[in-house]
Amino acid sequence: MQWNELDQEPCSVARTLSVIGDRWTILILRDCFLRVRRFEDFQKSLGIARPVLADRLQKLLDSFVLTKVAYQEKPTRHEYRLTPKGLELYPVIMSIVHWGDSHMTDKKGPPLYHRHNVCGHAFHVVQTCSECSGEVLPREVTVESNPAFALEK
Amino acid sequence: MQWNELDQEPCSVARTLSVIGDRWTILILRDCFLRVRRFEDFQKSLGIARPVLADRLQKLLDSFVLTKVAYQEKPTRHEYRLTPKGLELYPVIMSIVHWGDSHMTDKKGPPLYHRHNVCGHAFHVVQTCSECSGEVLPREVTVESNPAFALEK
Repeated sequence: MQWNELDQEPCSVARTLSVIGDRWTILILRDCFLRVRRFEDFQKSLGIARPVLADRLQKLLDSFVLTKVAYQEKPTRHEYRLTPKGLELYPVIMSIVHWGDSHMTDKKGPPLYHRHNVCGHAFHVVQTCSECSGEVLPREVTVESNPAFALEK
Repeated sequence: MQWNELDQEPCSVARTLSVIGDRWTILILRDCFLRVRRFEDFQKSLGIARPVLADRLQKLLDSFVLTKVAYQEKPTRHEYRLTPKGLELYPVIMSIVHWGDSHMTDKKGPPLYHRHNVCGHAFHVVQTCSECSGEVLPREVTVESNPAFALEK
């Protein structure tokens, strides 16, 4: 498996990592979901070198995860916003948050709390089945090959 | 932010990335959830250099995400199994899978299908609220600081 061909692998994990499989990229996305939108604000939040930040933002634009929107004219200034495709990365970020909250905190607890505006409660995310709404546990899932891929071999 | 101090950051995303924030590591975890357990099988599945694989597996042992279990004596052979802490990474892997299935597939569809043994249906994962069981969408979540962290500054 070659990193520069990750998006060609017959695996949805590998293909996703071709877009977000970089730690800076995941932290940029975390900030996007915290409503950070401007280059200077990402830079301040992450303490990342400017060329590295510019590179990662450009890759997210190229992948249609972010889009650039002008918020000021003369001079034109842009901000970065999540596209619908980018917004759908929320479960990835939130499942990372939940694992960190569960396993990587000390006695102070998690750095941030999340409140679900719909019900009003502090909450954590639970992964459920699209069909029966039950929680999905690894030992209760069977994986099946898509025959379209088997035919290739 | 320094990569070697990522586990000290007051952020559950950064802290989680200190454990899984490497593309090989995430692909190793994917394989663990596909019931791969032995060094040779990881090596064959990933096409990864043996010293790199050994390093990543050792880091996962050090983080108590994997545990080493003898499956044979004379000579002793070990396999790698997910701990309870490791099993709780399932939502991270499955949310990555779902995004890849949604956005990184061509007309052949996803490489693998997932069946929920509890209800018997092919499914995808949905992220829900621990309190009201509703789907969690980014625009319906408010983030609040833990005062224990604010006091530090």
